[in-house]
Amino acid sequence: MKALAIVSGGLDSVTLAHFLDHHEQLRGILSFDYGQRHKKELQFAEATAKRLDVPYHQIDLTNIAAHLKGSALTDNVPVPDGHYEAETMKQTIVPNRNAIMLAIAFGIAPAHDYNAIAIAIHSGDHFIYPDCRPEFAELFDRMEQKAMEGVANVKLLTPFVTITKAGIAHHADVLKVPIADTWSCYKGGEIHCGRCGTCVERREAFALAKVEDPTVYADSTFWIEECRKKGVTF
Amino acid sequence: MKALAIVSGGLDSVTLAHFLDHHEQLRGILSFDYGQRHKKELQFAEATAKRLDVPYHQIDLTNIAAHLKGSALTDNVPVPDGHYEAETMKQTIVPNRNAIMLAIAFGIAPAHDYNAIAIAIHSGDHFIYPDCRPEFAELFDRMEQKAMEGVANVKLLTPFVTITKAGIAHHADVLKVPIADTWSCYKGGEIHCGRCGTCVERREAFALAKVEDPTVYADSTFWIEECRKKGVTF
Repeated sequence: MKALAIVSGGLDSVTLAHFLDHHEQLRGILSFDYGQRHKKELQFAEATAKRLDVPYHQIDLTNIAAHLKGSALTDNVPVPDGHYEAETMKQTIVPNRNAIMLAIAFGIAPAHDYNAIAIAIHSGDHFIYPDCRPEFAELFDRMEQKAMEGVANVKLLTPFVTITKAGIAHHADVLKVPIADTWSCYKGGEIHCGRCGTCVERREAFALAKVEDPTVYADSTFWIEECRKKGVTF
Repeated sequence: MKALAIVSGGLDSVTLAHFLDHHEQLRGILSFDYGQRHKKELQFAEATAKRLDVPYHQIDLTNIAAHLKGSALTDNVPVPDGHYEAETMKQTIVPNRNAIMLAIAFGIAPAHDYNAIAIAIHSGDHFIYPDCRPEFAELFDRMEQKAMEGVANVKLLTPFVTITKAGIAHHADVLKVPIADTWSCYKGGEIHCGRCGTCVERREAFALAKVEDPTVYADSTFWIEECRKKGVTF
């Protein structure tokens, strides 16, 4: 496949890019600026494209995001602390975000001769985000085969859809992904906060995968308490 | 339903808005500026919202369109003359256009309490545009039910998907749509050109439906020859 990977700059999507590169399928990287407060992540997406020597595309969706429902990722709503599975993490849902990003990616693929779109959805996201589940991915792919029938032949790739984030951390280790050059924190500060859902999830993933985490967190003990609450021990 | 109608300003979508209004389901109108050369159509979309007294949303997709493959609707490629079914009309395909517009519409629906998105795809478009076919619409709707499961409940409405454009012209007549206040021509000149695919199709639709066409065309005889080629007589 000649794949265009949707990369946010986080651990999952940067590992996806390296995974595709390892399989000689990576041809380009696409990022979206949707007004996320952690826009800082985009510089890590661009750096990934440079490191893996493929074209980098960035699309500005801020004028669309202005019409979307308030989310803690984009609006003046505080990013909730705590584990991802908590009810409060639903505040980080941007309605239909993956369908919008994927539809645009499929639309631009023919212009650049990409025949696959890859996205790093994984099983750890299934609980909160419906547009990260396998049923969504399967229907999206089928929908696109009809939407572009006779126009272009582009497939959806979701190699991580059935593995956990710990599984991705394992891939990152094996593929020698420069983990320090990925950005997860939803708060977009100078360093990772260590308290928001994605920081807690990141730390837990490395711990479960027994992979050293080089990330510096502002609050380095919060996650331990959070994992204890969830019953995870290391 | 509380429907948001995607309206370009053309005969089909303006009639859709009036159709929904007649059924007391119209709550808003959404238009997209994707850099189409016939941007003039958008003023007719906005006028429809004003006439039917519903909010008007317009979203600028020009920075996305810049990444899409060249189409005669957006680039410096001449708009082909002739009947829609001709091979040259494939030049008017904007890859994945309907999936992109619908995904965005579904995304913004929860913010405004719309629970349906309506689009005026019809059977006359099936031959050229894969993203106007019933199979596409059905899969798109199913995909969205998964994409927003637990987040929002929004349905896709395609009331014209199995009727022809002549059927829409008939609806326009019955619903007393101000036909002169709709814009079809792909060339976007002062008046309808009368030669491009959509002008030819528009004239044919009114003739087949036996509805008077108040539109002034720059070339008023071209379509007669085109219809004769296709074997249509009036």
